[in-house]
This record gives sequence, structure tokens and C-alpha cells, in this order.
Amino acid sequence: MPHYTPPIDDIRFVLHDVLSIEQSTAVDGYPDLTPDMTAGILEEAGKLAVEILLPLNPIGDREGCVLEAGSVRTPAGFRAAMDVLREGGWPSLECDPDYGGQGMPNVLNMAIGEMHSACNMALMMYPGLTHGAYSAIHTHGSEAQRQLYLPKLVSGEWTGTMNLTEPHCGTDLGLLRTKAEPREDGSCAITGQKIFISSGEHDLAENIIHLVLARLPDAPEGVKGISLFIVPKILVQEDGSFGERNALSCGALERKMGIHGNATCVMNYDGATGFLLGEPHKGLRAMFTMMNEARLAVGMQGLAQASIAYQNAAAYAKERLQGRAVGGAAEPDKPADPILVHPDIRRLLMEQKAFVEGGRALLYWASTLNDIAHRHTEPAAREAADDLVGLLTPVIKAFLTDEGFAASVKAQQVFGGHGYIEEWGQSQFVRDARIAMIYEGANGVQALDLVGRKLAQKGGKPLVGLLSEIKDFCKRSQHEEAFRADFIDPLKDASKALQEAAMFFAQHGMKNPDIALAGSTDFLHLFGHVGMAYMWARMAKTAGQIREADPDREAFCAAKIATGRFYMQKVLPISFVHLARLKAGAGSVMALGPEDF
Amino acid sequence: MPHYTPPIDDIRFVLHDVLSIEQSTAVDGYPDLTPDMTAGILEEAGKLAVEILLPLNPIGDREGCVLEAGSVRTPAGFRAAMDVLREGGWPSLECDPDYGGQGMPNVLNMAIGEMHSACNMALMMYPGLTHGAYSAIHTHGSEAQRQLYLPKLVSGEWTGTMNLTEPHCGTDLGLLRTKAEPREDGSCAITGQKIFISSGEHDLAENIIHLVLARLPDAPEGVKGISLFIVPKILVQEDGSFGERNALSCGALERKMGIHGNATCVMNYDGATGFLLGEPHKGLRAMFTMMNEARLAVGMQGLAQASIAYQNAAAYAKERLQGRAVGGAAEPDKPADPILVHPDIRRLLMEQKAFVEGGRALLYWASTLNDIAHRHTEPAAREAADDLVGLLTPVIKAFLTDEGFAASVKAQQVFGGHGYIEEWGQSQFVRDARIAMIYEGANGVQALDLVGRKLAQKGGKPLVGLLSEIKDFCKRSQHEEAFRADFIDPLKDASKALQEAAMFFAQHGMKNPDIALAGSTDFLHLFGHVGMAYMWARMAKTAGQIREADPDREAFCAAKIATGRFYMQKVLPISFVHLARLKAGAGSVMALGPEDF
Repeated sequence: MPHYTPPIDDIRFVLHDVLSIEQSTAVDGYPDLTPDMTAGILEEAGKLAVEILLPLNPIGDREGCVLEAGSVRTPAGFRAAMDVLREGGWPSLECDPDYGGQGMPNVLNMAIGEMHSACNMALMMYPGLTHGAYSAIHTHGSEAQRQLYLPKLVSGEWTGTMNLTEPHCGTDLGLLRTKAEPREDGSCAITGQKIFISSGEHDLAENIIHLVLARLPDAPEGVKGISLFIVPKILVQEDGSFGERNALSCGALERKMGIHGNATCVMNYDGATGFLLGEPHKGLRAMFTMMNEARLAVGMQGLAQASIAYQNAAAYAKERLQGRAVGGAAEPDKPADPILVHPDIRRLLMEQKAFVEGGRALLYWASTLNDIAHRHTEPAAREAADDLVGLLTPVIKAFLTDEGFAASVKAQQVFGGHGYIEEWGQSQFVRDARIAMIYEGANGVQALDLVGRKLAQKGGKPLVGLLSEIKDFCKRSQHEEAFRADFIDPLKDASKALQEAAMFFAQHGMKNPDIALAGSTDFLHLFGHVGMAYMWARMAKTAGQIREADPDREAFCAAKIATGRFYMQKVLPISFVHLARLKAGAGSVMALGPEDF
Repeated sequence: MPHYTPPIDDIRFVLHDVLSIEQSTAVDGYPDLTPDMTAGILEEAGKLAVEILLPLNPIGDREGCVLEAGSVRTPAGFRAAMDVLREGGWPSLECDPDYGGQGMPNVLNMAIGEMHSACNMALMMYPGLTHGAYSAIHTHGSEAQRQLYLPKLVSGEWTGTMNLTEPHCGTDLGLLRTKAEPREDGSCAITGQKIFISSGEHDLAENIIHLVLARLPDAPEGVKGISLFIVPKILVQEDGSFGERNALSCGALERKMGIHGNATCVMNYDGATGFLLGEPHKGLRAMFTMMNEARLAVGMQGLAQASIAYQNAAAYAKERLQGRAVGGAAEPDKPADPILVHPDIRRLLMEQKAFVEGGRALLYWASTLNDIAHRHTEPAAREAADDLVGLLTPVIKAFLTDEGFAASVKAQQVFGGHGYIEEWGQSQFVRDARIAMIYEGANGVQALDLVGRKLAQKGGKPLVGLLSEIKDFCKRSQHEEAFRADFIDPLKDASKALQEAAMFFAQHGMKNPDIALAGSTDFLHLFGHVGMAYMWARMAKTAGQIREADPDREAFCAAKIATGRFYMQKVLPISFVHLARLKAGAGSVMALGPEDF
């Protein structure tokens, strides 16, 4: 049975020492987040993760969800856990106080989400998707819709879903066929089939608010003719009381590689009553509002699985006795040394550790940009942050999930044969982490979004801004020679590689778009590593300052700097391969005919 | 439901065009393997794979094995499939004719094994482990033991197992506790518990011959006190008839991430009757004879899962309509283009294809070295081949399984959400492939074997020999300018990197062994890529010669050369990162104390 230690010190280090969120007085909510206050909240959240969510994780995996007579039974204990979450007010943390929320910033929710998701990703998807539905209705709904649906979504009494995919269309939503036929009362009759609907049907809440993409009769073809509808499982009357059961049902559950505790549903809409959300034919835009937030959260899931998998691998490596250290027995009184003494086991663990701690900083940094974009007092600051987080979102989503999965596989490897059997839990972390590379836009789609859209926005200003931010940081931080050699020089080289890659695309991408597209994933990963290197340099610098001021934190800071040095020496060099690969162009990628595959 | 097209043309290309096996007249068995003869055998084997093994693969995954009152029930259809295998004589193909075998070379068995394992890895593990037991008894058994056990193992009527692991020891066999107490009749009483025993108990054969590592009473401590025993499930009398049921039983089955169709057993030996195989205290050496062969076969499993996963991903990419080619619609009459038009999908597929075809050549090449080592008429040739295959074995095992798993994950990614649900079969390929990185010595142990043992054997002669073989090949092949630029120059650079890495270890490894150990996995992967590059250069050269002589094979050869070019441009550059990483030494890997993890 896996264990989990909430990484409170690491989280606080990023929030308060590196990002200094409480000093961002121009961001609504940040000044209240003093280190003491976040410590209290994080400790409560961590306790809940360990005591309530973690024990249910293997149960959810083993039992899965069961569809019986149209109703879905979630695994034993999930209902009680949802009650605990609701009673603690956790779903409402980041929501608008006007609808019962607590108005906390996104970055705090992200830190809590990381711990909760680490301990039970499948269960946390129920409130996670609810938050997406909340955001869409909050941003695009009429005041009446907000009053009718938000309070119950905020409290967690109801849950929400996103209904995009159909059997013949996932990425290409222009192909979608679900129909919306207007009725005289202003509602629409929604008819069609949706697949892969996470949390589509379950027994954890008294109502489920489905957000469904469909076409109105007069809709233009393709993506410009898609509208978004609120389609409640049970219709809600104007006074908030329940009306009829709506004409929608869960037709089947998918058998999946992982996240067994979450119900992945085939949803059938048979003239179900739906209400237009936002403007007609502009549903995709509304959906994307919530998708951008969701993508950061999916990046968080990749990180979270890596984090718990790493913790358990490290513990196993300290306990499992096998072989002897090459330089002589480390624990001569035992029959063998713990496998942590073996350099290749350490390499595996250091790779995971460097990813988890660097990835956490990267994610929380992006999340603060998200907060600034929504909450800063200055419009110019909001806009700049919005641009940068828009650029970073596909990177965070794809990089953290690709690398989070890879880190989970490495953690599993530390266990040897015990990693492959279900008893130890490592297999579940790997299987659960796998979906994060696929949903909310497969990672190749993220690379396309980055290279085909985000990179060129506003004439490339966001990337230029980021590169000059890094340059400024390097200038300010290169006075100490060892720090410069260990952190600043590699960061400079990697960001130059990123700049060179962007220039290469700019020069060749117009003539031959295949060049940028064939190199898009390499570009995204190069970008991810530059982001990680920037975070590691910032963390190492901060740790260097703290260790001088506070001897109590010496061990923490020394480990942080050593881990950062590992990242720079042993991981970052991959950046140059990504550059070389993308500069090799599209020729060899596109050379074969379809018949050759 | 996945499909499979036996890659007969590709296999024949490697066997006959690249490796020219039928021209190796000094190798017993090779002159008989004319292209026509192998074609006939491969086609029969492929037919069996597609018609019998493939349909049972998802059934085996879904049903798994069930333990009831000490007996294991394998999935529906497995017994009938084993009958078909036996009736076709497939288990006996590579075995000694003196015991009923057909005396075919290893490389042919490897090619057949690839197809069979692609279609049903879990099922093929039953005869696969049997072959390991056959080899150990054949090499180390007395003539009486050979007569008693081999004919039934060769025919497939009985199956075999390897019993190494115990709950507290896997890699470090020196810790093992299972006891063997000599009896007056010359047999021993075997007592102890073994875990992770693949095919340990099942209903597919009338007897199971367990090979069990245990300690005799006078045994020295550690690995030098381990002996190997033949412990039949049902005792066999001297006349070959069955005696008593032996005192051994399957105590439990493991719940695993994959290979559900294979029974992974906890085996309890309660004073079971065992017979010493080979010399006392030299059991590990005997076990390693069969382990080296088994490691090549595990490399084959990694390749095989990647191969079928790739085939299905390619087919899906041609069928699934989503989005449009960036340069304008490829199939304007359809609602969207097949996703194969998208450069990032092609990149995924090209990476898989380049791995599968290059990995196949690498594996079969190593397998011919195995044949030469056993069957060449000249002792010097046998010795040289044995040295080289010894060096290559850990590379093949770890590189093909790490990369085979990675390729299977990429194939799954091509399917988007459909890759995550079990219906399409991609999840099973990934889950099954995962074990190959772990069993028969986890891949980190392979890297240790390579760097800590094989590299230095005979003063490093095998690696020097390989590097000069590659050098000679380059010299002979650099006359054509385009070929030199595309294939020879990158191959030269990569092999220089491998040489540099070996020199680096030689210089620093004695002073500080951690340097070699911390870089061992990087070294192994660098080695793997040099091997792949050598194979791709040889394949491209051969394809260039064929296309001039035989216009019918133009398309095949052109695709081969284009795929090789992709490998050289887009994959091989990773070699230099492996070199840079290992040259960064062990400092940052070993810096942290145990309390920092």
C-alpha cells in the first residue's frame, strides 16, 4: 500500500520563497496568503489527502465503476469522501464569493489539487470537471443561469461535465453532429451521442450539469457552427427545485487502462432539454475558456502522479536490501545494502526528483500568471500575464504529462518485479498518469497549438518577453562564479537554443509549414526544459540566499541546490537534441507514401 | 480488435539480403535456410500467429488466470492453441535432433518468436520458458537426465520454469534461502518459497519441470553456494512413466499490470524431491547459460510488442479522419483527411517504424552471432562470436525493451482516447511490453552487466573488435557521396562517441567506479544507438544495391532507405546527449544523503 507525505515544505518554498506570492500586493487575494495561512490550509489539505483519499485509490482501481439500469455505482467509499470534501469547503476554494465561493487564488487551489490528485486522481476528477463547468457558466452564463447553477456547483452538491467528443470526432470538433433544435420556450432539444465523458454519470451528487457542444439548425459548417448548452441531468426549475429527469442517459462505461474510479461514459442525448450558454455558434470559444484552465490542471495531474510514485520509489530504495555498494558495504550489519547505494538507482531517483520539484515550480509559476491575468489591479499587467500563460499552457500540459508519465515509469522500475504487480501501487500510478498525455487535447495537439498559434500571437511578443525576462534574471544573478557556471551558463545556452528554434521556424515555417509542424513536439519539449532550467536557477538562487540567512534550513537548501545541479548537468543537455532534430526539418518525416506505413 | 500482418518481406530482407545467412556455409544449418525454405516456414508461422494466437490475446488479457484448489486455469482457448503449437512442431524447431528436435538455427526461431510473441506474448511465455529449461538440462544435465526430460520438453508435452526470485531477493541471488537437503537415494528435499514464477502452474501440459535454485547444507555463503535442481511437478520414473505428485504447490497468483494470460505464481516447495543439475554450488553459472539466451528473447518481446502496436497505429492513422493537411485537403471528397497527413502523427509513426525495422536487424544479427558461437566449424570464429554476443546481450535486452515500450506508448498515443480504452488493444501492448524492462534482470542490471563486466572482458577486445568492424564497413561503403553523408558520417560520429565513452570509463572508472556505474544506462543506450545506426547503414546499403538489380523491389528499397535516413537525422543525435551525460560524471548523482530523498 503506497504512502504519501504532503510536500508542504517544498510547496511553501515555491509559493513564498521563490514566487513570493504574499508580496504581490497588486494581485487580489495574494496579500492574505501569508506563509502561516497557506501552511494551515496546506496541512489540512494534506491530511485529507493522506487519510481520506489515498486509502480509496487502490479500491477505486480494483472495483472501478459499475453501470446498472442506467445508474453508475462508484467504488466503495467514494461517496463518503465526496461528503468530506464538500463539508470542508474544498470545491468552493477558488470560486466567486458571490456564489458561495471563498475567492482564493488559483495557485493555492493548484497546490492543494496536486496533493489531492496524487492521492486519488480518479476521484478528484469529479470535482475537477465540476470546476470546469463552473468556470464556463461563470464566464459565459446569464445572471439567471449563474444564480440557478453556480451555488450548487460551488458547494459541490452538484457536479459538472464537458461533452465534446463524438465517436467520429475528437480533436476535429468541426465534424460534430449532435443537434440542438430550438423549442418555443427558448430551450433546445439536444440529440446525439457523446463519448469519453468523464464523470458523465455517477452516484456522488444529486444532480449533474452537462455542458454539451451541439449544432443549431442554422449553424455554419465546421467549428464556426458549434454552440454550447447547459443540459442538466435533472431539470432545475426557476425556484431552484428539481423538475423532470432529462432525456439523457449513460449508455455504457469504457473499460480503460487506468483511472478506473472515474466513470468514463457514453452519453446519449435523446431530445434532452438544453439551454444555450453564451452566444449561438460561439460554443467553441466558451469551451476553450475552460479548457485552458483545465489544461494547466492536467499538467498538474502528470506532476502529481510522478510525485507520489517518486516518494514511494525513494522509500522502497531505502528499505529494499540487495547487493553491496561498490566502494564497500554501507550497512555491514545487514545482509545487504539498501538499493539506494547503487548509482543507477540514484540516477533514476534523481531524475524523478529533479522533475517533480522543477515541474512544481513551473506549474505554480504558470498558475500565478493565471492569477495575475485575472486579479491584477493593472490592465497592462493582466494582459501581459494572460499572453504568457497562454503561451505556457500547452507547454505545461504536454511537458508535465509526458515527463510525469516517464517519471512514473522510472519510479515503477525502481521496484523491479514488485513494480509490475498491482499490490505495490506503482502500476496504478503509471496507468493513471497515461491518460493525462491524451485528454484535454492530446500532447501533439498541444504542440500544434504552441507552434501553429501561440508562438505567432501578437507578433511573437510573449516569447520575446519571456526570453528577455530570463536574460535579465541571468544578468542579475551571474556575479557568483560557481552559481554562474552551474546554473546561469546552462540556462543561457538552453534559452539561446529556444530562441534559435523559434527563429528557425520563423524563417522556414512560412515557406513550408511542415517544418514547424514536424518539429512541434521537439520545440515544445525544448521550451519545457528551458522553463524547468529557469525555475531551477531561480530555486537555487533563492536557496543560496536562504541558507546564509537561516542555518535551520541549511539541509533543505543544500539538497535543493544539489538537485538543481543534477538537472542542469544531466537532464538539460537533451535540449540541444531537440534543437538538432527540429533543424533537421520535415523531409525525412514526410518522405514516405501512405502505402509505406 | 487489433490486426497483424506478418512482416515476412522485412524478415526475409534482414535474413537473406542483409545477413545473407544461407551463404554462411560454415554455420551448421544455415546453408539449408534458403530464401524459399524460410519463406515457407515464416508464412506458416505467421498464419498461426494471426489465426490462432492473435484472437486469444485480448481474451487472455481480460480473463487472466484463475487459481482454484491449487490448480491454475488458463484463459479460454489457450489449451487448444498449445495443442496447435505442439502439433505443428513449433516448440521443437531449435532443439537437438537427438531428443526429437529439428535442429534449426536460433535466428529462425527468433524470427518466428517475434511474430508469435507480437500476437500473444502471455501465451508464448509458456513454451518460451520451456525452451530455457530445455537449454539448461541440455547443457548441464547428465545423459540420463537428458533422456528423461528433454524429449517431452522438446515436443511441448511438458513445460518448464525458472525459479530464482524469493520474497527478499531478486537481483541479489546471494541472499537466497531455499534449502536442498540430500537424501540417501541421491535426490534432495527442496524447501522454500519462490515468487514471480512465470508459467509456474497451469493446465496446458501434463507435467511441469521446475528448475529451482537452492542451497545445499555445506554451501558457502553468497552466490558461490547456490545449486540448481530439477524439480518436476509430477515425479518421473526411470522408465518415463509418472510417479507421485511432488511436494510443491502454487500458493497464489499475482495481480499484474499485464501479461494476464501468463500465470505468475508464488511457488511453495515443501520438501519437494529435486535432482541436482550440473555441479553442486555452480547453479548460478548453469542458470546464466539459459539466462543469456533468455535475455535475447526478452529483447525480442520488446521489439514484438512495438511491432504490432506500430502496425495498428499506422492502420488507424490511415483510417481515422480528423482535420486537414496544412497544405490543402489530401482527400477533399471526405469530411476530413486521415490523420496520417499531420506531421506530428508521421513523426510518431516514423519513430516507431525506424525502431522496429532497425531493432529487428539488430536482434537477428545478435542471434546469428549466437548461432555462430554454437555452430561454426572454426573454434576461433565460435569464440569471437561468443564474445561479441556476450557484449551485445545486455544491450539487446535493455535497449530493445526500453525503446520497445516507448514505441508502444507512441503507438497508443496515435489512437488518442481510443488508445486508452481496452477495446482497441493498444493498452494491452503497452502493459504487456512493460514487464520486459523488468524481468530477466531489470534494465539497470543489464547496464551494470555491460559496464561492470562485459566491457572489460578479455581486455576490452570484443568492443574493439566491433568498432573496427564498423570502421571497416564505413571504409568499404563511403564511395557514394549521398550515402556517405546520410549514413556513413553519422555512423562514424556515433561510434566515435561510443569509443570516447568507453575510454572515459577506462580512465575514470578505476579511480571512481561510481562514474562508470552512474553512466551505465547512458552507455548502454549509446551502444544501442550505435548498433541501430550500424544496422540501418547496412540495410540502406543493401537496399541501394537491390534497387539497382531488381526494379520490382524499388518501392520496398526506397522506403527502407528513407526510413534509415529518418533514423540517422532524427533519432541518432540522442547519442551525443548520452555521451555528455555520462561525461558529467557521478558527482551530482551521488550528492544527496539518504535523508534527502
